Amino acid sequence: MPLLVMKFGGTSVADLERIRNAAGKVQREVERGYDVIVIVSAMSGKTNELVGWVEQTSPLFDAREYDAVVSSGENVTAGLMALTLQEMGVPARSWQGWQVPINTTDAHSAARFVDIPRDNIDRKFAEGFKVAVIAGFQGIGPDGRITTLGRGGSDTTAVAFAAAFGAERCDIYTDVDGIYTTDPRITNKARKLEKIAFEEMLELASLGAKVLQTRSVELAMRYKVRLRVLSSFEETDENSGTLVCDEDEIMESKVVNGVAYSREEAKITLVTVEDRPGISAAIFAPLAEAGVNVDMIVQNISEKDYEDHPGSVTDMTFSVPINQVERARKVMEEARTAGHIAYEELIADTEVAKVSVVGIGMRSATGVAARMFRALADENINIKVIATSEIKISVLIERKYMELAVQALHDAFGLEAA
Amino acid sequence: MPLLVMKFGGTSVADLERIRNAAGKVQREVERGYDVIVIVSAMSGKTNELVGWVEQTSPLFDAREYDAVVSSGENVTAGLMALTLQEMGVPARSWQGWQVPINTTDAHSAARFVDIPRDNIDRKFAEGFKVAVIAGFQGIGPDGRITTLGRGGSDTTAVAFAAAFGAERCDIYTDVDGIYTTDPRITNKARKLEKIAFEEMLELASLGAKVLQTRSVELAMRYKVRLRVLSSFEETDENSGTLVCDEDEIMESKVVNGVAYSREEAKITLVTVEDRPGISAAIFAPLAEAGVNVDMIVQNISEKDYEDHPGSVTDMTFSVPINQVERARKVMEEARTAGHIAYEELIADTEVAKVSVVGIGMRSATGVAARMFRALADENINIKVIATSEIKISVLIERKYMELAVQALHDAFGLEAA
Repeated sequence: MPLLVMKFGGTSVADLERIRNAAGKVQREVERGYDVIVIVSAMSGKTNELVGWVEQTSPLFDAREYDAVVSSGENVTAGLMALTLQEMGVPARSWQGWQVPINTTDAHSAARFVDIPRDNIDRKFAEGFKVAVIAGFQGIGPDGRITTLGRGGSDTTAVAFAAAFGAERCDIYTDVDGIYTTDPRITNKARKLEKIAFEEMLELASLGAKVLQTRSVELAMRYKVRLRVLSSFEETDENSGTLVCDEDEIMESKVVNGVAYSREEAKITLVTVEDRPGISAAIFAPLAEAGVNVDMIVQNISEKDYEDHPGSVTDMTFSVPINQVERARKVMEEARTAGHIAYEELIADTEVAKVSVVGIGMRSATGVAARMFRALADENINIKVIATSEIKISVLIERKYMELAVQALHDAFGLEAA
Repeated sequence: MPLLVMKFGGTSVADLERIRNAAGKVQREVERGYDVIVIVSAMSGKTNELVGWVEQTSPLFDAREYDAVVSSGENVTAGLMALTLQEMGVPARSWQGWQVPINTTDAHSAARFVDIPRDNIDRKFAEGFKVAVIAGFQGIGPDGRITTLGRGGSDTTAVAFAAAFGAERCDIYTDVDGIYTTDPRITNKARKLEKIAFEEMLELASLGAKVLQTRSVELAMRYKVRLRVLSSFEETDENSGTLVCDEDEIMESKVVNGVAYSREEAKITLVTVEDRPGISAAIFAPLAEAGVNVDMIVQNISEKDYEDHPGSVTDMTFSVPINQVERARKVMEEARTAGHIAYEELIADTEVAKVSVVGIGMRSATGVAARMFRALADENINIKVIATSEIKISVLIERKYMELAVQALHDAFGLEAA
């Protein structure tokens, strides 16, 4: 029997009516001949309520108890989904993480999958059940305690089941109808993509296109699980949504497939840093230890010799999430006080945004960067920092030009046309 | 290490502040040198919310899924209670039914305990944990599915743990401060009892004194678990509340220790029933099968011979919960139509109430019934049905006299004075 994994997020199961709607989509796949594994999130708002209770109870909470409390939201939805399917005449059974069992590491609140044995669920399918409803986001650790995977872990649960059960596809039902070339709120020329490669999706996800959890895309790429993103709130068929797949499945690709952005960026420049071997490590190791997420890094080599800096000096610029600026400043000042690094001044610019163009076609194309810079220059947008990877070019610009930049790049790379 | 079981009901853990208050009581017992097993209910209202969702989803719900959904309320409280205790510096760990494991039968939604192995929890106590917080009302069936014990099952969980772990006592914290001689809302002369025997508590519980679940008292009696009922909302010490215990612990007992009542009664009389061997079975077997809870039964022997009733005839009177009158009528009419019984008329009186006096002292005392009937006669209250057991006398009377009857009996048996 071919098998499908279907995942419904919190807004898709927010109340009984929406659960019924989601169950209708499951029923349709069963009628098409599939065995289905359904992964559900908690009803929207429930997990936040539970997390709030835990944090109010114990600011430095025991992660074992946090997991025991917070996982209960998904258990409720799983049972209600199974009941709804039964009511529709579809033989269904719910499974909590420990019942499958979904074996994970014991890293509570941030557990990783170890193993998902198929036996129990396969036996139920063999008995005639058509649907296994799995509480997402949770598992069981080596000590028999409940674990959770961290927020958004239900997407990852879905991909892990698709891999373990060799599913034909993993359909992620959410509140948008697919992946777009850019945010439709910024330009109405944004176009829904039929297909997108894993690598592109990864860059888009980590750049702020919040549809899919980065971790779930990584896992899908590793196990070549075909992911489909589609809407819970529309009539859908086998062509709906966007397929996230191996690039081999994508016949022809544009050079650039998407324009992503992030508003929550800040630029930090250390002015007149002593330039010596090991200076980068001396700067970025303590930032990493303090949990500061450094993204882009640029070093301006300076050949000047100052009297009080006998060696050469440089300016070091990097970007961090805007809410980590003060933490970064504190870490740098402590490192300077401790004598680990030397710099004259730390300048933080919190009025920046990041805009990126992404496309696997970039690997074999030339002149993409030039085309991007030209498009921005035509709008008089000054580029503050540039970073490139194999399939992505990102720039930091003044935040007030962000929308304009996205629109200009969307036009420049012809993304409106399919 | 001496061990105590402490159970907190839904109103005692209704929000984070009340959970803190309850945890304070646990901490005090730990400071006194006890290891403590805490049994918690769901935050009040939560179970009803979950049951509502299940019933709206599937009127004839699958009890396995019902149990999976409904048990989640207790899991949340258990985790929050463990976190609260940890925050107070008390080493605590939460346990869901399957983790202990609390092994039950597979009678979903009405499961019974099979076995509560001590190993896992004993090991935690040996590691230095002082408190095990157990999600009440739930267990795990032989097929690895979650079971629940039926509403109010958390009291029963508490008693079962007290029995399994040889607890010194099982303290049931609730929203009243003990067991009273009668309902204080009916007479302000009602007095809190220091001690009450299991048998008396059983009669009072099943007669409508809703403080303790009948089933938990039965279990406590069987395993001689000393139960204490006391208030979550007051300062309590080792003398608070009411101790429910073996009658051996009660030095001297009054003849009557309590006056109970139930408003939800109806009286049904089958007029001119053919009186023959097996007629009682023919009447009450189909009622039992239809789930009608028959309580008191009275048969008036009639010696008259009617022309169309060649044998002797009788009138048969019994009481049922008021909301089961129509079901009882339907069952009787069907039995008559099928020719299993014969009667002329069914008269239902839905304006009755039951009043009972209860006391283990009755066993050795005489004249209790006479004193009861005299007290009612003095108030001109007519008795419609009488039923007696070893430690209880119950009467059905007109409902409008119920409060008056309770007050008169409370006075007549001198219950105000300790």
